[in-house]
Amino acid sequence: MNRRDVLIGGSAALVSAVLSPSVFSNDKPKHQVLALVFDDYETLDLHGPIEMLGHMPNAQISLVGSQSIVRSYQGPKVVTDRQFPDVVPCDLFLVPGGIGTRKLVEDKALTAWLAKQCKVSKKVFSVCTGSALLAKTDVLNGVSATTNKMAYAWVTSLNSQVTWQPTARWVDDGKFLTSSGVSAGIDAALHYIKQTFGEAEARRIEQLTEYQWNSDSHNDPYAISV
Amino acid sequence: MNRRDVLIGGSAALVSAVLSPSVFSNDKPKHQVLALVFDDYETLDLHGPIEMLGHMPNAQISLVGSQSIVRSYQGPKVVTDRQFPDVVPCDLFLVPGGIGTRKLVEDKALTAWLAKQCKVSKKVFSVCTGSALLAKTDVLNGVSATTNKMAYAWVTSLNSQVTWQPTARWVDDGKFLTSSGVSAGIDAALHYIKQTFGEAEARRIEQLTEYQWNSDSHNDPYAISV
Repeated sequence: MNRRDVLIGGSAALVSAVLSPSVFSNDKPKHQVLALVFDDYETLDLHGPIEMLGHMPNAQISLVGSQSIVRSYQGPKVVTDRQFPDVVPCDLFLVPGGIGTRKLVEDKALTAWLAKQCKVSKKVFSVCTGSALLAKTDVLNGVSATTNKMAYAWVTSLNSQVTWQPTARWVDDGKFLTSSGVSAGIDAALHYIKQTFGEAEARRIEQLTEYQWNSDSHNDPYAISV
Repeated sequence: MNRRDVLIGGSAALVSAVLSPSVFSNDKPKHQVLALVFDDYETLDLHGPIEMLGHMPNAQISLVGSQSIVRSYQGPKVVTDRQFPDVVPCDLFLVPGGIGTRKLVEDKALTAWLAKQCKVSKKVFSVCTGSALLAKTDVLNGVSATTNKMAYAWVTSLNSQVTWQPTARWVDDGKFLTSSGVSAGIDAALHYIKQTFGEAEARRIEQLTEYQWNSDSHNDPYAISV
């Protein structure tokens, strides 16, 4: 029964039973998603992927940061579930970007934590200039990756050992999934869901969110020539 | 100077000066956006529009709810800036949807507050099943509106005096802008920016977020036949 069936035909109780996280409180291990937040993170870099990932079977999403309340560039604030220097084994570690990365790339404690957190994460997913933070560690060295095309010159200048791709909505190179700017993170999140749970699940989530998925990583409307 | 110029050519200090909210701390009145939040709101219904609206000139975005910390359906929590029963005059009042609306439509105190808040808002913008909450007041009576196509039967059953539209990515009927499900709120937010600040501003924000705007309200990939 998908959400369309539920929402069209279902009673409130049935909808709750089928959709609320409580239905996932079972013996199955959660699909753990950990997302980094920092002041002046870009709102959609974080919440676009979270929208899609939050509909995965048995998903559990937590936020980690340096303090309990973190402010987005757009203004609204989120509450962190964990704080540094904890590292947390997870299935997917999401690293958003935003103007706050301009300051964070100079934060050696953050960079050291980031390298440790990547080690205990099965997959690492950066959106937009989140790749700038990863590029300040050595985890992307020798890896094919992309970033926000509006900030391409700056991000790629941070680490010449990364195989940067100027034309890619996202790049999936084994452990590291890196997307282009802001909205591209939503398309890359659906790619992760397809890879992890199959295309039918990705299409189900695309439909229930009335999204129009750019499902071709090579279709990059903001590609640049370098 | 747009954000692309800044991010490609700018120094961190310049970027900060041009982009950080502090640059807007001037004598110009803020463009006030107030957004309702409630437990089990749908993440992208709120944060998709906030991403786009947050890049408007002089934008100031606040969250209002019944308690200080509110949990999204996907898990992450946000912090409210104001709490009921305050009503706040604003330029735009954003009402997201989500599974939490199934319970909220029965909350008479919320409905009464909503009607008062709509009165002091220049424009009211609902996303997804946020229109179900508005439909429980009389503010949409005689108004052309749309809602989440996955929940169309339920929402439209709440108020027969609304002129519901089964084929519309969004409907703009004077004071009330109502969008289809989840992702459609991003397209409707860019419509509001175009209407308020001109198409060049909407296209600038589309580009800096690497978004692919469905700018035609009649282009509804999830339209249903009724």
